[in-house]
Amino acid sequence: TINGQRLNDTLHQTCEFGAAHPWGPKATETGMARLALTDSDKAVRDWYVAEMKSLGCEVKVDTMGNICAIRAGENDGPPTAMGSHLDTQPTGGRYDGILGVMAAVEAMRTLHESGRKTKYPVAAIDWTNEEGARFPKSMQASSVWAGDITLEDAHALADVTDDKVTTLSELQRIGYAGDVPCSWEANPLGAHFEIHIEQGPVLENAGQRVGIVRGGQAYKWFEITIRGRDSHAGTTPMDCRADPMLTAAHFIVTASSIARAHGGLCTNGIFTAKPGSVNTIPNEVRFSLDIRHVEDAQLAAIEAEIRAQTAQITKTGYKVECAIEWKPLYANPAIVFHPDCVAAVRAAALGNVAEKDTREIISGAGHDSCCTSKRVPTGMIFIPSKDGLSHNPEEYSTPEDCALGAQVLLDAVLLYDSQ
Amino acid sequence: TINGQRLNDTLHQTCEFGAAHPWGPKATETGMARLALTDSDKAVRDWYVAEMKSLGCEVKVDTMGNICAIRAGENDGPPTAMGSHLDTQPTGGRYDGILGVMAAVEAMRTLHESGRKTKYPVAAIDWTNEEGARFPKSMQASSVWAGDITLEDAHALADVTDDKVTTLSELQRIGYAGDVPCSWEANPLGAHFEIHIEQGPVLENAGQRVGIVRGGQAYKWFEITIRGRDSHAGTTPMDCRADPMLTAAHFIVTASSIARAHGGLCTNGIFTAKPGSVNTIPNEVRFSLDIRHVEDAQLAAIEAEIRAQTAQITKTGYKVECAIEWKPLYANPAIVFHPDCVAAVRAAALGNVAEKDTREIISGAGHDSCCTSKRVPTGMIFIPSKDGLSHNPEEYSTPEDCALGAQVLLDAVLLYDSQ
Ligand SMILES: NC(=O)NCCC(=O)O
Ligand SMILES: NC(=O)NCCC(=O)O
Repeated sequence: TINGQRLNDTLHQTCEFGAAHPWGPKATETGMARLALTDSDKAVRDWYVAEMKSLGCEVKVDTMGNICAIRAGENDGPPTAMGSHLDTQPTGGRYDGILGVMAAVEAMRTLHESGRKTKYPVAAIDWTNEEGARFPKSMQASSVWAGDITLEDAHALADVTDDKVTTLSELQRIGYAGDVPCSWEANPLGAHFEIHIEQGPVLENAGQRVGIVRGGQAYKWFEITIRGRDSHAGTTPMDCRADPMLTAAHFIVTASSIARAHGGLCTNGIFTAKPGSVNTIPNEVRFSLDIRHVEDAQLAAIEAEIRAQTAQITKTGYKVECAIEWKPLYANPAIVFHPDCVAAVRAAALGNVAEKDTREIISGAGHDSCCTSKRVPTGMIFIPSKDGLSHNPEEYSTPEDCALGAQVLLDAVLLYDSQ
Repeated sequence: TINGQRLNDTLHQTCEFGAAHPWGPKATETGMARLALTDSDKAVRDWYVAEMKSLGCEVKVDTMGNICAIRAGENDGPPTAMGSHLDTQPTGGRYDGILGVMAAVEAMRTLHESGRKTKYPVAAIDWTNEEGARFPKSMQASSVWAGDITLEDAHALADVTDDKVTTLSELQRIGYAGDVPCSWEANPLGAHFEIHIEQGPVLENAGQRVGIVRGGQAYKWFEITIRGRDSHAGTTPMDCRADPMLTAAHFIVTASSIARAHGGLCTNGIFTAKPGSVNTIPNEVRFSLDIRHVEDAQLAAIEAEIRAQTAQITKTGYKVECAIEWKPLYANPAIVFHPDCVAAVRAAALGNVAEKDTREIISGAGHDSCCTSKRVPTGMIFIPSKDGLSHNPEEYSTPEDCALGAQVLLDAVLLYDSQ
């Protein structure tokens, strides 16, 4: 049985590295700004390496800085891993990713103290730059491991604020450019389990405590640019405008209702307009489009419908019309987790709570587990997020739910290992 | 008869002070960036003062830096003025305001050369900071003259990019803080005439050459802030969002269609969203709203309908809803120019072109004449703008139309003076 108090104490103690954005009087009432490969990320990595070594684990650092701590089993072979990430958003919280690694640490402590032997090795992993906030590619290092992107491309990816600072130069600077190959083939895992906060309101609204994650939804990111003609707000009749702002507003309303009609999601998080003057119709607006659906085919249908309908919006009949440009930024297909891992998570959950306190759920967000799932059996456990909040300093999950989730994680790993 | 070639040569020669944004190979194929009270504004002012003195005018600089060049008449009394502005937008053109002052210069040259005597004095005026681009208040100095804002407030108005640089400190720095009172009572005019480019497409689309301006439309500026809750784009169901971006998109579409239904205008030129991440629903978006109508009552109706309908948009029924805040920035009532001035402009226009080449028009934009009109009989002349473009480096009017407009200006002034 894991020690819930110790898990929560450790989680909050290690949040001293990168704590930011206080929102209440207590020391734990802050968010986090622990961007990947910064000094605060190095500090928590150093703590993690020392802690895992103190538990007798072998610690391997790969070429992407992923830290894999391995506890030997009765037999050799690829370890059954528990992984997540220690980096955060710039205005992130104390649970997204962090809970997954701290639960793995607590699971390792529990195995260590009880002297429990496993059939095969068990590992805890900190995956580098899951957030993609500093180096703009989510799940950067688990994507390299899975062979989705090359090591060279990942190493070359620069800091969003400084072209000269790359992933590789920062790995070297903080001493985490290891020599173990970052590769599912050269450095395999037997399976990957991850506990994560839901980051949404589904469990909380249903009053349930454990999400048995069946997979991850498909999503695509685009940068949309609409060009029109800048002209005077007071002298240009409504029928003589090529107004990219109004076109963008129609685009956003249309895209949202198409996604909703298909049971999908649509979000526009970034928006800029040029030149930016009260009495000038903009010449260019640019915004991000994030569309998601649990089914690849439905996501394709949403994209196609948005393209078709928004192409009509620009057809005003005036001699100067707006033009819409789509730049694809990212695409992630729907993920289905391995039935054996889902079964292990379900059995572990039902060993701790009643069936009514659990639900099967599809992850709305991408996770390192979505990458590992392409190569090895993978499963995830969700616990409730207060108010469904995440990517927000006030992100919160109760100590009880964190402890329950860590217990389900350990039990699922032991069940999977014993089969 | 004015000299059209000389007018155009002078206009382009003086655009050496502040030329910017080249868009073609010729020397005149640039826009302008001559912000109020900058060094390039001082340079063109110095040129203007010297030129008017060379024509025998008395030059008075008032406490707002307005430069009034007076040619004596047969009788004393308040002068009949021709005025506009020499400052431009940061990405402005060569005609907006500049044509009005250069046409006044050319009219003065014509009077001077012909030795024509007027009953009363005639003046040419350069009004300070009409654009409101550097010090954020359009028609700043003509508003002080008309008593709409106080001298103290106008002097204290700071540069949009630097709090410590004020209108007064810049007037002093460039040597244009005069001691003549900036006041319609202490320093009166008899009338005010202004030629300006239309800045819109109405004359060009109708194939007409002279706009007889009947007045200016009413307009109001607001800063709209919509606050919601930032949450994860992938994990937050569409029904559990307080999404200020989607609300803003609905707002813009709604406001535009309300303005259109009333025969008015609606523009959103500035737009920002925070925190600005592809996969985070924003917590706050902020945008400008510029609404206009030729009738005050209709403008009030547009505002009231936008307020009522957009208040409904936020009512999603979810426990966290968006909130809309309206901050008024500026309000300008509808202006009706004096019938005697409108009649003088019409007669002058019909003396130069056929009636079918003229039209009565309401100014969509604010002008210094809208301020003078509150205190003295005022009239305006518009000439066509190519493609209706203004506040744009490619703003263009033909040399022939500029010359025609200057002739109508002079003729209107002489007609008004002779009555
Ligand atoms: N878990 C998480 O926030 N991942 C980021 C990628 C996404 O937008 O889903
Ligand atoms: N003429 C002109 O561009 N004035 C600025 C004020 C307005 O927006 O109408």
